[in-house]
Amino acid sequence: MTVFLSSAEPGFAQAFEALLASKREASVEVGETVAAIIADVRRRGDEALIALTEKLDGVALTPQTLRIAPEEIEAAYKGIAPDVRAALELAHARITAHHEKQKPADSLYTDAVGVTLGSRWTPIEAVGLYVPGGLASYPSSVLMNAIPAKVAGVERLAMVVPTPRGVINPAVLAAARIAGVDEIYRVGGAQAVAALAFGTRTIAPVYKIVGPGNAYVAAAKRQVFGTVGIDMIAGPSEVLVIADHTANPAWVAADLLAQAEHGGGAQAILLTTSTELAAAVRDEVERQLGTLRAPETARAGWEEFGAIITVPSLEDAIPLANRIASEHVELALADPQPVVALIRNAGAIFVGHHTPEAIGDYVGGSNHVLPTARSARFASGLGVLDFVKRTSILSCTPQALAELGAATVILAETEGLEAHGRSVSIRLNH
Amino acid sequence: MTVFLSSAEPGFAQAFEALLASKREASVEVGETVAAIIADVRRRGDEALIALTEKLDGVALTPQTLRIAPEEIEAAYKGIAPDVRAALELAHARITAHHEKQKPADSLYTDAVGVTLGSRWTPIEAVGLYVPGGLASYPSSVLMNAIPAKVAGVERLAMVVPTPRGVINPAVLAAARIAGVDEIYRVGGAQAVAALAFGTRTIAPVYKIVGPGNAYVAAAKRQVFGTVGIDMIAGPSEVLVIADHTANPAWVAADLLAQAEHGGGAQAILLTTSTELAAAVRDEVERQLGTLRAPETARAGWEEFGAIITVPSLEDAIPLANRIASEHVELALADPQPVVALIRNAGAIFVGHHTPEAIGDYVGGSNHVLPTARSARFASGLGVLDFVKRTSILSCTPQALAELGAATVILAETEGLEAHGRSVSIRLNH
Repeated sequence: MTVFLSSAEPGFAQAFEALLASKREASVEVGETVAAIIADVRRRGDEALIALTEKLDGVALTPQTLRIAPEEIEAAYKGIAPDVRAALELAHARITAHHEKQKPADSLYTDAVGVTLGSRWTPIEAVGLYVPGGLASYPSSVLMNAIPAKVAGVERLAMVVPTPRGVINPAVLAAARIAGVDEIYRVGGAQAVAALAFGTRTIAPVYKIVGPGNAYVAAAKRQVFGTVGIDMIAGPSEVLVIADHTANPAWVAADLLAQAEHGGGAQAILLTTSTELAAAVRDEVERQLGTLRAPETARAGWEEFGAIITVPSLEDAIPLANRIASEHVELALADPQPVVALIRNAGAIFVGHHTPEAIGDYVGGSNHVLPTARSARFASGLGVLDFVKRTSILSCTPQALAELGAATVILAETEGLEAHGRSVSIRLNH
Repeated sequence: MTVFLSSAEPGFAQAFEALLASKREASVEVGETVAAIIADVRRRGDEALIALTEKLDGVALTPQTLRIAPEEIEAAYKGIAPDVRAALELAHARITAHHEKQKPADSLYTDAVGVTLGSRWTPIEAVGLYVPGGLASYPSSVLMNAIPAKVAGVERLAMVVPTPRGVINPAVLAAARIAGVDEIYRVGGAQAVAALAFGTRTIAPVYKIVGPGNAYVAAAKRQVFGTVGIDMIAGPSEVLVIADHTANPAWVAADLLAQAEHGGGAQAILLTTSTELAAAVRDEVERQLGTLRAPETARAGWEEFGAIITVPSLEDAIPLANRIASEHVELALADPQPVVALIRNAGAIFVGHHTPEAIGDYVGGSNHVLPTARSARFASGLGVLDFVKRTSILSCTPQALAELGAATVILAETEGLEAHGRSVSIRLNH
């Protein structure tokens, strides 16, 4: 049942806690199965990959057909509807332009004692991109994961995508081609993650793996973490709409349903200062559910995880919003700007009545891979920084070493690291 | 046995592979023990924390003595040797100055179609810092973990440190006081990690946990990841010294031994173009081992994991260095600057004959928490970015929404997300 809360009512604190703590994902224990798959791919390489793909995806591959040929990608790109291709290209241009601004600058300076200090950024050489098959095979996700990697300067971006019973979404191949993905392999699941992490004869290993996947993929990413880097493990999507009496109930309802239709535990919450709006949105959700071609997932999502919370004033909404720490926060307010600065825990903030969250999913330019499950308290969305790494650079003149040497020897001795001190003092006597 | 390799000899490729693949850490399977400890702390809070601390550390605490009192911290600060205090304060000033330069800038701009896009950075509100007890209780590590958090603007930095049989290193408390740590609790192990992640009556929960620890601490951090953020799991320390014939063999040997004395799998590798230097360093290591007060750990480390690799030219050294991807790389070269740009996989680079790695451990200013176990291929050292998070901001004018609306609806329909499209089209008809 959709939750209705008012912060003015007794018991609100506990009910709000319960809402925060509600589990929206069934945790599936697949660790052992995944460990066996990874071990098999490490041992048998392509052979394991081909056997597992035949068994799990019902596709018979050879080492020659593991990789999708350039002609097949080109055909998909040319074969999709021209308006879809144009929309993907618009999205690509806008996402690229925004991410270009995220490139970090190197910094190198010499301080007063003569130490030259630097932070230098370099791209990760090779990255793997996991793309789910079937229903959740979204071309927009290909763009959102691939573009920051390419903007960062990743030289080799290898994509894996399962093709259950041989079927692949041509729009996914087109998006990969538009984004400049370098290699695409028709494998998925834990076996694809293992191949990317450890390499096979056909698939060279990468240094980091990103992209969403099912429980097997998530478990495989956790298990190969350390051998390679991974991105966050994404949970179900979420929106928090903060609205006042100036909000259009039909627009707010549409935004809540856009979130709910993701299914799989997706959560839509309205937090409002207006009891009239709360009631109107509630009715509008019902009305709009009646007009969707396939309302089942959205209805189930809204009824299972949806919530409407009323508060006396905007000041009361802010701390609740920061505790919810939603992936997406919409500000459907007459005067949203002052509130932007007060919302500190959010993956992305959509400001004003004319900024539905869906704009950010596709063509706004910002990334749609954002922290879920309250992790916006400590994590950021995907960006260029996820595909580069910083190397510190330190250089002492003999004088600088003389200046800093005594303190170094004292601290090394305090920590019982005699040879550390020696490595400095041996240079001071010259 | 220390490994001696020459890239000119047959079998080098395989021997080098074996060196890269060598395991330097015994993996201890403590997952189930740790899961039980975490469950106990979640259920019983302070009571579990006190019981486990009595059992594991031999210290009897009460809810009142869990937290170290300000007077005890102040007494430790005043009680340490003045030269150690001064050295810690020098280190604090230099590390702070360097990390101030890492603070990311917000960016907000309006593009040609009227979309305002932003990246806004905010500090993580509350962070936990794990500090090991006993031998590995290093005041320098307290500074290196705490300072970037404080520079980032973290409001609440809560430190935990076990005090086996009641003993604590006063220099650790002094370093915490100098760095501005807000709270210190005398607990350690998986129970301390659980308390930080989930909170108890005495210890409020944090949003991210950083700092090194033993296998139990590492397993606990992995298990609470998701509920809170964590830093990298640190492996044994490493140095790669790249040297030519201009290097001083005694200095290079001292640097190798400084790394080897960490023990616990620490690795020191010399990669040189000079067979004379290789032989001289080999002899110098032996000679210097004879002059250390306590050479046992350094000797064992050098013999078990040390390596000397000779190559015909510097050009041959670069790809090997990038594959080793060492935590620390020293360039003991006549002309090191051109090589800096070629070393792309390294936690930190120490440039020139007068920059021993130990300078970076203490007072250089850069951070000594750096990626180990070849993870410099995809990860960075600790810094201010680890204590902030980015929120995307997106704002459309009605005209901008009209401009981007059609493409959004097309992509949403392509992905079967009808309600996403509706949330845009409903606004276009106004």
